[in-house]
Amino acid sequence: MTESFVTNTDAFLARRRALHEQLSGPVLLAAGEPASRNYPANRHRFRATSHFLYFVGRPLAGSAVLFDAGRSTLFTLPPDPDDALWHGPRPPLTELATELGFDAVRPLDQLDAILAPLREKLATLPTQDAPSARWLSERLGRPVLERTGAALGDARDAALADAMIALRLCHDDAAVEQLRHAARVSAKAHVAGMLATRTDGTESDVHAAMLAVLRKNGLEDAYGPIVTVHGEVLHSDDHSQPTRPGDLLLADVGGETAEGWAADITRTWPVSGRFSPTQRAIYEVVLAAQGAAIAVAKPGRRYRDTHEAAKRTLVEGLVALGIFRGDVDGLLDRGAAALFFPHGIGHLLGLDVHDMEDLGDRAGYAPGRTRSTRFGDGYLRLDRDLVAGMAVTIEPGFYQVPGILSDPRRTDPLGADLRRDVLAKYADVRGIRIEDDVLITKDGNEVLSSGAPKTVAEIEALMQP
Amino acid sequence: MTESFVTNTDAFLARRRALHEQLSGPVLLAAGEPASRNYPANRHRFRATSHFLYFVGRPLAGSAVLFDAGRSTLFTLPPDPDDALWHGPRPPLTELATELGFDAVRPLDQLDAILAPLREKLATLPTQDAPSARWLSERLGRPVLERTGAALGDARDAALADAMIALRLCHDDAAVEQLRHAARVSAKAHVAGMLATRTDGTESDVHAAMLAVLRKNGLEDAYGPIVTVHGEVLHSDDHSQPTRPGDLLLADVGGETAEGWAADITRTWPVSGRFSPTQRAIYEVVLAAQGAAIAVAKPGRRYRDTHEAAKRTLVEGLVALGIFRGDVDGLLDRGAAALFFPHGIGHLLGLDVHDMEDLGDRAGYAPGRTRSTRFGDGYLRLDRDLVAGMAVTIEPGFYQVPGILSDPRRTDPLGADLRRDVLAKYADVRGIRIEDDVLITKDGNEVLSSGAPKTVAEIEALMQP
Repeated sequence: MTESFVTNTDAFLARRRALHEQLSGPVLLAAGEPASRNYPANRHRFRATSHFLYFVGRPLAGSAVLFDAGRSTLFTLPPDPDDALWHGPRPPLTELATELGFDAVRPLDQLDAILAPLREKLATLPTQDAPSARWLSERLGRPVLERTGAALGDARDAALADAMIALRLCHDDAAVEQLRHAARVSAKAHVAGMLATRTDGTESDVHAAMLAVLRKNGLEDAYGPIVTVHGEVLHSDDHSQPTRPGDLLLADVGGETAEGWAADITRTWPVSGRFSPTQRAIYEVVLAAQGAAIAVAKPGRRYRDTHEAAKRTLVEGLVALGIFRGDVDGLLDRGAAALFFPHGIGHLLGLDVHDMEDLGDRAGYAPGRTRSTRFGDGYLRLDRDLVAGMAVTIEPGFYQVPGILSDPRRTDPLGADLRRDVLAKYADVRGIRIEDDVLITKDGNEVLSSGAPKTVAEIEALMQP
Repeated sequence: MTESFVTNTDAFLARRRALHEQLSGPVLLAAGEPASRNYPANRHRFRATSHFLYFVGRPLAGSAVLFDAGRSTLFTLPPDPDDALWHGPRPPLTELATELGFDAVRPLDQLDAILAPLREKLATLPTQDAPSARWLSERLGRPVLERTGAALGDARDAALADAMIALRLCHDDAAVEQLRHAARVSAKAHVAGMLATRTDGTESDVHAAMLAVLRKNGLEDAYGPIVTVHGEVLHSDDHSQPTRPGDLLLADVGGETAEGWAADITRTWPVSGRFSPTQRAIYEVVLAAQGAAIAVAKPGRRYRDTHEAAKRTLVEGLVALGIFRGDVDGLLDRGAAALFFPHGIGHLLGLDVHDMEDLGDRAGYAPGRTRSTRFGDGYLRLDRDLVAGMAVTIEPGFYQVPGILSDPRRTDPLGADLRRDVLAKYADVRGIRIEDDVLITKDGNEVLSSGAPKTVAEIEALMQP
């Protein structure tokens, strides 16, 4: 049966009230417009901007929400008689106002008259598409660029961005329920993926089985799914490779609820259902690194500490296996972790899978903190002190990337302490990543994605015929 | 097992040669840029423009192809060392030139120097995304708008559009193989959809099963799939409704090959596996209408004749059932067909599911022909004389759309000859559509989508437990 879950209007009312409390000036947020695929009427499935979804909960293309003087008004296209034929009947605007708990819902063509006295004071946030950016520019009488990331030139917009970050960093109960639901269904998709893996199949068999679970439960993809026997290619979107007995398969797949909330889960499993001794050895190291990171993902701790904990545990494990030689602190200083784990430990999770990445590091980095210039650490997307209500991913990995292992800039500092003869024995481990969604709670944390088997024993038990 | 199919380079060489023969001036075609979903790095899966795919066969985002003086050159991003980490190693450009059969493949940053002497003479076609349109505008020194449809203000661009239409209207052998492959796999998806239908399930069960077949075989969606128990809502994209014993389920689902070629198939089947007598009666009428249309889809016939044949057979059938009373010609004149079949019989099929709809009616309508102003007929997307090598859809339907049946503009002309008391007996038929992909051949036609069960007997036999 389909699991379904829709937040009640109280949560949205509270979010809107909170924004009014944070800001005195008027705010206009656009939902955005669908993107065309190959001709105007053939479109990518519409996904509204997350800021809009946060307050409205429905992807109403072309709509906008106006916050002014304590009132929240939704402007949208009124039902059109032709809708009935092409898209089904839509409720009248008054009904929508009740349903969504807005002070008013008005036809979009009334917006300009209402905006006229506010125009100079309006704050907004960019959308991802050019038509909406043009539309906002016309409404505000100043340039609003699409996809601007962190570059918010206007002080009103920057203040709005900070207010949104303040609201969205810590999730309310309704958001937590959405995240739990997304993670629960996505974990089921991973179970289905493990069960659909065949030694004479292809990656696409696994992908299709996972996708089917998401869609059956009403979830879209929160991001382009990665299902690959080449886990060492971090963002592979190819699913055509055969799955063969000695391969590990890495699946980084997460769904998004109808209201837009994301899950982001990675599991790595043996195509045959049994890890080889070398695969198991490295897998246990990555799992230990993840455990160490999750153990410090607690209120009051700095997120960067989880990254450092994972790096240390990873290098300790690789020393124990003989792949590195020497003192762990020294190895870490010389870039040992990034050699096999060249990305950040994770990121914020919420309405966006990289939550608020549209605002750039303004969301992910606390004021005064900036990206590291070191290889690997520079990819860390989050460096804030953790607070109850934040959701983050914890996703260490181990990858043998030829381009890194043959790059003297990366390997020279390690010299002979990287023991290539030992590493050669682990050739059947191309890429492993283990990723969970972790909600920071008052007392510690809650792993939202625990429904996906993770230990060697759990995975092998599930996959036995 | 995965069915796969990749066109050899000869077909692409021949297509490029044909364009050189059609046009003397230089041409620059852009592949387009991926659209962002909710933040810049979270993107919709990239789909290159069909004009680019026609000559290149691969969705190389940000690339462009230059045709000049008999030479075809691909400009693309050269492999970057970072690719190896994030997207896997890419072949060097020389290798790509051999593989794709280009005279040369050059790094994108060499384009401007090569364009300099050609700039004033260049023809292009718009892309679907604003960044590419801006990029083209800068290269050509004149405005190129995104998503312009038919509005090609520039004479060079208009001549290029006409040349593309001349090339793409009739499919070469390689294109036909792609269309056959897309239709074959999509037909299998319909079989899977029928088998996955449950009297205690939801539309999304069926959707997921169909999607899984497409993905397993390497096909993306050619368009937003419609899987609905409310077939009377023509473009429903909701898949959340329960599927119940008395319902008909309408699935309009087609895949797109890796090279971009589309299928477009609709089947309507009973959730229970057995049509009710009323459902069967109307289904047989729609099937007869489709058969009548396919029978005239032959070289030398006007496509509009297929639309008219379907309308006539539909109205004849409804008269036989007693839903209409009176003379068929008179009923047709008074809009009887559009009352239940308010859309066009179909459209061109090729790289786009509505092939070349980015060029508006310039592609679909022969010079001198224009859209009808009549309700229903005005939605006909194609009015050309059929020629061997064209692919079209034939997709009549019967829908009880409340907004039409309660609209006096539509029903008054029929008066009491629409027998509502008889119609009331067919309340369990909300929407039926039967759609096949038809290739016009020298001798008649070939139904590419015949793998999907279509007769009442075929469907009921497949769905029996």
